[in-house]
Amino acid sequence: MSDAIEFFFEFSSPFSYIASKRVENLAQKHGRSLIWKPFLLGAVFKQEGTQSLMAYPTKGPYSKRDIERIAAYYDLPFVWPPTFPILTVNAARAVLWAQDQSADRSVALIHALFDMAYMVGKDISSFNAVSEAAESVGFNPETVAAEIKQPSIKAKLKAVTDEAISRGVFGAPFTFVDGESFWGNDRLDIVDAWISRGGW
Amino acid sequence: MSDAIEFFFEFSSPFSYIASKRVENLAQKHGRSLIWKPFLLGAVFKQEGTQSLMAYPTKGPYSKRDIERIAAYYDLPFVWPPTFPILTVNAARAVLWAQDQSADRSVALIHALFDMAYMVGKDISSFNAVSEAAESVGFNPETVAAEIKQPSIKAKLKAVTDEAISRGVFGAPFTFVDGESFWGNDRLDIVDAWISRGGW
Repeated sequence: MSDAIEFFFEFSSPFSYIASKRVENLAQKHGRSLIWKPFLLGAVFKQEGTQSLMAYPTKGPYSKRDIERIAAYYDLPFVWPPTFPILTVNAARAVLWAQDQSADRSVALIHALFDMAYMVGKDISSFNAVSEAAESVGFNPETVAAEIKQPSIKAKLKAVTDEAISRGVFGAPFTFVDGESFWGNDRLDIVDAWISRGGW
Repeated sequence: MSDAIEFFFEFSSPFSYIASKRVENLAQKHGRSLIWKPFLLGAVFKQEGTQSLMAYPTKGPYSKRDIERIAAYYDLPFVWPPTFPILTVNAARAVLWAQDQSADRSVALIHALFDMAYMVGKDISSFNAVSEAAESVGFNPETVAAEIKQPSIKAKLKAVTDEAISRGVFGAPFTFVDGESFWGNDRLDIVDAWISRGGW
């Protein structure tokens, strides 16, 4: 696994959405496999004593504008979900369940959920929304709704979140490659250079 | 002044040092004038309820590594000053005083102070260090040491810091251009695109 790119992301992070549209090209360009790791950013913030960007009095409004500006910079459609931050526990669990069913369709589900939230502007927090996204990529919606309530899936999300914390994740997205970690969508350019040059 | 680039920076911010080596080229490329605004980041953090990057348990060590990695990415020499964060009140006041004497030499002083801190690795907090940097760009060191104690210069630094807060600055560097604001060294690429395209 040492040559894989590990991409820790959170559905409630607009920069994770933006980076999710770029990281596959990056991995492909360098012939690296890509491991998608949905985790709960709230647990990480609690650990670090920080908050969502949006919770800060001045950084909040700036970040709102910055996110819209950066999405447009990459020619990505972007709308704010009706409720923000998003409760993403169901979405993240659905992805972890899907990863055990089909690698390809689990990635399709990640995109479907991100698109539902930030392109369509739908609330993806509910079982219904998550099931609908899962159905759109070929999963049985009833199965998904039932499976994500299983203790084993809940434990999996806790394990990925614990792994994120133990590996020094304090925000999203967070990209690990070749023993280095890189925080943020903007650092994907540095990841690209780092892999190209074999570090520096 | 609407076409000027305003660059708010703090000597105790390594990303301000890195951006200080790039922002002149950016301004030149677009035929914009550049206004350097030294301010006190500590006052801004107090206002926002945040802290220096380095003060966070996980973001701190990450940022240390990230700063070194980013400096090397731009082929910039980088060492940590012996004491960090740096007390920059004298350095910032010296720059504000120098700006009333000579625009060119005030910019030279900014670079001399950044280089002393992050290339040579000297503590730039003292009157002596600031006077030495000022002398290296042609100012009389005794004059500088005396002038930066004047109430009018102290008031000027307070005014720039208050201006930063009132304009939504919550970190460093912060770049204002064409009615937009951009936080961080990494956003200089976006500033570049923004000016080139006339916004989007």
